[in-house]
Order: sequence, then structure tokens, then C-alpha cells
Amino acid sequence: MPIITVDAAKITKENKAKLITSLTKTASEITSIPESSFTVLIKEFPVENWGIGGEPLEEIIKKMNPK
Amino acid sequence: MPIITVDAAKITKENKAKLITSLTKTASEITSIPESSFTVLIKEFPVENWGIGGEPLEEIIKKMNPK
Amino acid sequence: MPIITVDAAKITKENKAKLITSLTKTASEITSIPESSFTVLIKEFPVENWGIGGEPLEEIIKKMNPK
Amino acid sequence: MPIITVDAAKITKENKAKLITSLTKTASEITSIPESSFTVLIKEFPVENWGIGGEPLEEIIKKMNPK
Amino acid sequence: MPIITVDAAKITKENKAKLITSLTKTASEITSIPESSFTVLIKEFPVENWGIGGEPLEEIIKKMNPK
Amino acid sequence: MPIITVDAAKITKENKAKLITSLTKTASEITSIPESSFTVLIKEFPVENWGIGGEPLEEIIKKMNPK
Repeated sequence: MPIITVDAAKITKENKAKLITSLTKTASEITSIPESSFTVLIKEFPVENWGIGGEPLEEIIKKMNPK
Repeated sequence: MPIITVDAAKITKENKAKLITSLTKTASEITSIPESSFTVLIKEFPVENWGIGGEPLEEIIKKMNPK
Repeated sequence: MPIITVDAAKITKENKAKLITSLTKTASEITSIPESSFTVLIKEFPVENWGIGGEPLEEIIKKMNPK
Repeated sequence: MPIITVDAAKITKENKAKLITSLTKTASEITSIPESSFTVLIKEFPVENWGIGGEPLEEIIKKMNPK
Repeated sequence: MPIITVDAAKITKENKAKLITSLTKTASEITSIPESSFTVLIKEFPVENWGIGGEPLEEIIKKMNPK
Repeated sequence: MPIITVDAAKITKENKAKLITSLTKTASEITSIPESSFTVLIKEFPVENWGIGGEPLEEIIKKMNPK
């Protein structure tokens, strides 16, 4: 019954499947709760909806990748 | 002030309205908190963002509905 | 696989069991998703952690129940 | 490391940036936790996914703005 | 109807009240949504439940405050 | 900036640290997002607050472990 939620920006479909499989396996091994009891839910939000340290993530990314 | 959140895949607009009305009514009757204090928020995420038992829900659905 | 979360203040154990049973039944009937697929999670937070309309809920309750 | 989440309906990009900056500043000043430790995440959900007092928000808005 | 959630570690009761008042005021001014529509919910989790950059926050704090 | 949240029942302190380290490592390898950008937050809720398939988890556990 544990629920693993990943809040992130865009994730590819292939990586979603990998996250579901691997995060469940990892958490199941540590907690000894069977894999069958886990739910994984990936929540994608646009980059412009995120802020880190009081600054929009979009601005931070722009600064890191100047033209 | 209680908040009822429903994380699900796609839900029709008609069913959203029904969920809002019925979940509020049900929870209000049980807790004796007036309906007017409740917020319901329905959060839809694509099927590919869900995993059950370490397996992508999309795969599970395909297996259940083989062509 | 839908997850129904109830964020509230203190709820009695008896009412928790009722919420689990009734909210699942209600949501299952509306969505035609089988009851067995639902998870309910009740999250309790102290009254002092809630604010409504910019005012601590604790203050609001005090005003409604003056000595 | 505190996370400020804003669940709302549609928010303009300009207001998202303002919320990120201002909510972080406000919370940092109150808690004395440095701004750099904060994450802000704005989650937008359609109006039809919200219910207040057991009534779809869409209906409430319509009543407030009758033609 | 917007909901502002603050996930944090321990917060004093006095600061909870300040966060409720100030975050609501700040978000209301930016979005032009009336303060009365906002809910604030502060969720406290122990330091040992937090990890930053793959490291338990408890360890990070210890390193920053060596005896 | 991704946030990995684990909603579960009681987890030992040792396992919390392991989850923080391993879930971050796993998700970082899959997404190529650096570990330093991840936050992990473990949220523990009592068994009586969980329901699976419309039944309180506490009842389910009792049936699985009859005296």
C-alpha cells in the first residue's frame, strides 16, 4: 500500500516505465513490503510551475545555458 | 475545511460533478462536518504515469484486454 | 488504482473506517472502477496547522464558540 | 527544504513567477529558513475538477456571473 | 479555493499563524483571488523523513553543525 | 528539483535513510537528473488511516494474521 509519488517536469514514457519498475523494486527490497503492494504515480508539471530558492526554474535553466 | 483529493486517470466531466457532490455528502454525514466546509479536488494523470505492483498500469490493462 | 486522500483534522478511528468503506463505495459506483482498485488515505493535521481565508482555523473556531 | 505547493486553477506565467518569488520570500522571513532551501511547485487543475461545499466550482462561478 | 500547502519540519505555533496570514495575503494580492477563498495547510514531518540530494537531512545538518 | 514522496505506514529510521539514498540514486540514473537536485520526503500515517479496496488496512492485516 505504500505510494511513491514523483513530482517532476516532463519525463519520457520510457523513463516513466523504468521509474515505476525500479523505484518499486528498490523500496520493496528496503522495506520488505512486497512489490505487489506498491503504487507509483508520476506527476508532471511544466518547468514554469517550479521555483527553486525563490527563483523560477525556467530562469535558472536559462542562466545555466546561456546562448 | 477537509480536502478530499481524488488522484485518478481520465474522468468524464459528468462524473467529476457526481464525485464532488457525492463524496462531500458521504464524508459530511460520517464526520458531522458541514458540507459547506469541504473542498474536493480531482487530479487526473495519464495511464502511463501510474504503476501498480512495479508494473506500468498501461501494460496491466493491455494484458487484461488482449486483442 | 485511484487514490482518495482526505486531509482533515482529528478523526475518530470509527469514522476513519466508515470513510474508507463509504468513500470507496461512492467513488466506485460513480466511476465503474471496481472497489478493489481504490486506496483511501486519511491524513490528520492539527487544527493549528490549518488556515481558512488567511485566518488560523483555531481562531475561527474560538470566535464561533465564545466562552 | 520546505516545499510550498499551490493547488489552483489556471495561473498566468507572469503570476507564477511572482508567486515563486514572493511566497518564498514571505515564508523565509517568517521561518528564518534561507530562501535557497525552498521549492515552490504550482499545480494547475481545470475549474471543472474543483468542488466547494459539495458543488462543482464551475456551477458556483456561473451563478455568480449570470448572463 | 486555491490551497497553499507547506511541507516542512517542525514549525512553531506562532510561525504557523504568521504563515497562514502572510502566505494568503501574498498569494491573494498576486492572483486577485480574494483571501477568503484560500486554504493554507502546514504539514510537519520529522527531520529524519527528509532527504536532500540523496542524503538524509539529519546528516546534512550534523555536518553543518559539527560539535 | 524532482520530489519523491513516499506515503507509507511506520518506517524505521534506518530504512528511511536507505530509502532516501537508494530512491534518489535510482531515479537519478534513470532520468539523468543529478542526485543533488532531488528531494525525498517520507510521510508516515498510522495503519488505521489506510484503506485498500474499501476495507480498513487494519482489518486486512488481522485477517492475514489470525490468532
